[in-house]
Amino acid sequence: MISIVILGTGNVAKHLFDAFMAQNGIEIIQLYGRSQNALSYFNNQVNTTTDLSKIKAADIYLVAISDDAIFEVSKFLVDKKGLIVHTSGSVPLNVLPNKHRRGVFYPLQTFSANRKVNFKVTPICIEAENEKDYEYLNEMASAISDKVLQIDSEQRKALHLAAVFANNFTNHIYHTAQEICIQNDVPFELLLPLINETAAKIQDFSPLDAQTGPARRNDKGTLKKHLAQLKHKKHKKIYSLLSKSIRKTYGKKL
Amino acid sequence: MISIVILGTGNVAKHLFDAFMAQNGIEIIQLYGRSQNALSYFNNQVNTTTDLSKIKAADIYLVAISDDAIFEVSKFLVDKKGLIVHTSGSVPLNVLPNKHRRGVFYPLQTFSANRKVNFKVTPICIEAENEKDYEYLNEMASAISDKVLQIDSEQRKALHLAAVFANNFTNHIYHTAQEICIQNDVPFELLLPLINETAAKIQDFSPLDAQTGPARRNDKGTLKKHLAQLKHKKHKKIYSLLSKSIRKTYGKKL
Repeated sequence: MISIVILGTGNVAKHLFDAFMAQNGIEIIQLYGRSQNALSYFNNQVNTTTDLSKIKAADIYLVAISDDAIFEVSKFLVDKKGLIVHTSGSVPLNVLPNKHRRGVFYPLQTFSANRKVNFKVTPICIEAENEKDYEYLNEMASAISDKVLQIDSEQRKALHLAAVFANNFTNHIYHTAQEICIQNDVPFELLLPLINETAAKIQDFSPLDAQTGPARRNDKGTLKKHLAQLKHKKHKKIYSLLSKSIRKTYGKKL
Repeated sequence: MISIVILGTGNVAKHLFDAFMAQNGIEIIQLYGRSQNALSYFNNQVNTTTDLSKIKAADIYLVAISDDAIFEVSKFLVDKKGLIVHTSGSVPLNVLPNKHRRGVFYPLQTFSANRKVNFKVTPICIEAENEKDYEYLNEMASAISDKVLQIDSEQRKALHLAAVFANNFTNHIYHTAQEICIQNDVPFELLLPLINETAAKIQDFSPLDAQTGPARRNDKGTLKKHLAQLKHKKHKKIYSLLSKSIRKTYGKKL
């Protein structure tokens, strides 16, 4: 049995809380949040506190808070014997004070309120400073996910940056497609099967092979027509840059 | 029973061929391709020809060929009584010679070799010039899809442009994420669950609401660090432009 205190009340904290609560080998003994309001979701399920001086003794302290606050909050855990881990993709392990046993527990996924995540297929990137702590984190991660990997701080930083492209930028492209639909009075919902298939396709094919469209074909006529058709300058800029980037990628093969 | 001649041997032609072959109410009586080689997939299943002067009489001629060739090929059908339809998103109906009964049958999806498409959920955008021809196209489209819509040439052009963003540009963003992974020696496969969830999320949420990340939060520190971390100029350019575009989108709400 691994005992955990979770620090944080945001989406990552909530989703991990739900996932761990469903496991037998893991006991969440306390949850810390900055305000009673933020704790309302957890109050009836587990011991909660808004006071960092009242954190209980546990095997693992899971710091699932915003990147900027990790260092400040972890200082309050300075007298604890348990392993202190944060859940951030971009923050290195050594941001945690080196008096602690330290680690990272980074679930590579996008978490939203009111939307369940399938943890079984969610990669969990773990980092620790010794074999015993790796074993702890591995046991904890394996309880909820089938994809547990040892990833160091440098690699995790790179993964997180690639995830900004794969998630944040992809979503903004969806938003741009929606703006074009709205401007032209066609329902954006018609694109949803295409969006699903575009993501599903690269589960089997490399994106390099999956690429289609006028930029890939170097179809200058269509590229020019599309640019003329776009009404917003910001849409034109995105169209231009990504088309140029596609043409550069495939240019040698044309 | 609707009789169809399909002209074309590419991905769209193949996928539509397979879908119609599985339907009772539709009979493919012939398939035209430019070379015997291109016809190999179809030869044992249906009458085929490489000769445009030997096209049989049919209710519908489905011209599923590259945009640039639609006009030239359709001229060979000038003495036919059936309805001539093309399958292109960006070509207007009136590219087909006006001596014909004309229409459009545009499946809004990305088609790849060796990958089955679920036509039941694929929107099929139809266009015709009279009620009777609409009925024909509606019957034909409804045989394979539950989402059949009347969309005119202007709307279809806008949808097709939005689809370039939703598919072509999204896929290029995936490719960029993969390049970043390769450069940093981390497996791109780790991002696949995130990519799936990013697409799945907007089946329920608007992309405007689903947006997360440093640009959305206007987290200048992380934006600066990410730009420094990117090694390729083309990656920096994409990062900059899309982050700026996200900041503009949410700027008023910050």
